[in-house]
Amino acid sequence: MESSHYLETLRAVINAQLDRLSDYPAAVPPRLKEAVRYSLLLGGKRLRPILTLASAEMAGGNRAEAIPAACALEMIHTYSLIHDDLPAMDNDDLRRGKPTCHVRFGEATAILAGDALLTEAFAAVARTTDASLRAPMTAVLAEAAGVFGMIGGQTDDVIGEKNLSGGSAFEDRLTLLRSIHRRKTGALITAAFRLGGLAASAGEEQLLALETCGEAFGLAFQITDDLLDVTGNEKLLGKRVGKDAALGKLTFPGLLGIDESRAEAARQVEAGRRALDVFADSPAKSAVVEILESTLTRKK
Amino acid sequence: MESSHYLETLRAVINAQLDRLSDYPAAVPPRLKEAVRYSLLLGGKRLRPILTLASAEMAGGNRAEAIPAACALEMIHTYSLIHDDLPAMDNDDLRRGKPTCHVRFGEATAILAGDALLTEAFAAVARTTDASLRAPMTAVLAEAAGVFGMIGGQTDDVIGEKNLSGGSAFEDRLTLLRSIHRRKTGALITAAFRLGGLAASAGEEQLLALETCGEAFGLAFQITDDLLDVTGNEKLLGKRVGKDAALGKLTFPGLLGIDESRAEAARQVEAGRRALDVFADSPAKSAVVEILESTLTRKK
Repeated sequence: MESSHYLETLRAVINAQLDRLSDYPAAVPPRLKEAVRYSLLLGGKRLRPILTLASAEMAGGNRAEAIPAACALEMIHTYSLIHDDLPAMDNDDLRRGKPTCHVRFGEATAILAGDALLTEAFAAVARTTDASLRAPMTAVLAEAAGVFGMIGGQTDDVIGEKNLSGGSAFEDRLTLLRSIHRRKTGALITAAFRLGGLAASAGEEQLLALETCGEAFGLAFQITDDLLDVTGNEKLLGKRVGKDAALGKLTFPGLLGIDESRAEAARQVEAGRRALDVFADSPAKSAVVEILESTLTRKK
Repeated sequence: MESSHYLETLRAVINAQLDRLSDYPAAVPPRLKEAVRYSLLLGGKRLRPILTLASAEMAGGNRAEAIPAACALEMIHTYSLIHDDLPAMDNDDLRRGKPTCHVRFGEATAILAGDALLTEAFAAVARTTDASLRAPMTAVLAEAAGVFGMIGGQTDDVIGEKNLSGGSAFEDRLTLLRSIHRRKTGALITAAFRLGGLAASAGEEQLLALETCGEAFGLAFQITDDLLDVTGNEKLLGKRVGKDAALGKLTFPGLLGIDESRAEAARQVEAGRRALDVFADSPAKSAVVEILESTLTRKK
């Protein structure tokens, strides 16, 4: 993925816009601004916003209409990491190779910085140039991030799974695991594809293809995330490994074993790639395919 | 305020709609739903949503267009209480006469329930019937709740004020106190008035009047909130009193004394009332004036 000039360009566009959006004037408490920018700007693959911009271009749209939604997704992703890392949640001290937000700024500021990013994400979408896109994009974002999506999945991940990780039947646990990941990680990634389609005013067939691709990719991404927690390098990842097992979490390698998890990830990537057949070849499409395939070999 | 049939009707409409909006289907984790409903439904004056509905009717609009935004405001207010009560923030164990959300459900669930309410607030506005209202309402809501509004004020309240509560000049402390409250409490109350105006498609003069009234009322409300922390009854209030002094917080009675704080609240209520002169007499206007005036005698 790193080799592609196209992807590097998108990443630079996103980083510049995230910098601008969080460069609050002096009326905003400096410590809040510092905490927001610490978590938002220093690192991150920008996977979700890149997928939104590339999906928009793949569907014949342009970046300008997609970038507010793309940045909103990254803000929501960042807020979820800040809150997930809190002592009351996953209690992580390392993220993207640096102290987590609450370790650096204290819990109160970390909670507020997360709240700020979630709120400002919706403010960003409200500034999309084409006014007719603002409400549909807000709806997609809220649905993906809300109780049916990310927060629902996160709740089951932090609280609910303990009921099932022990004695329950294999099938029940696998169903719950897929359900958690479809919501916790998948909903936001699927929204990334869908928001790109909306920005391009894509038709129903294209939107459906984008969602299908997003769902498959989201699952592949989470499976490889679970695998990296078992086989990954802490330095490369910039976060602790072995946490899932220590916390007794449901994971794909824990349920299916490493080899079958890898095979399942590969099947999902292939399903995602096939869904894109409705789109004509383009640099944007090649980039999306490259991102999909790179999931299987990712080291971070 | 309690005597007015009109206000009771609005409160019942709001309570019913909040109940419906949080009656999530089984796909949402039951514990998350329970925590959300515990904090959202059991109590609360519904001040902000009532002001939105009454403002809409006062400006010649109808309730139907205002109710999603009204409910969104109450969800955002509730999320802010849940997060403010957390051990890392104000560490409160009592709210509306009951254990706070984290005491009842644990910190992780409380953080998630707050996140859920903030997100679902934007989802609610995205469902406003008149599609042309959705984006402007989202913008008002995000601005009021975000880094320039509530979260900025809250950050200065929790973290920033300690720099000034000790030796700084009286004028500096009063300026900071007003600035904190204009954002922490005032922004959402001002938004309540403004959202009502938007729902009624009010003109610029009316919107300005609503905002002026909202700003004055927000300040009056916060001054009396500070006063109740000094002079109020814990049982009636349903929350701890004397917390501000114990935490060394900047407050109006602390800075101005009790009598001058009362006089200032009365001046703000009068300014708010005068701003409403642009509206014709109506039951809705009488109700708004009644709410304004009742601030000066409120016991909770």
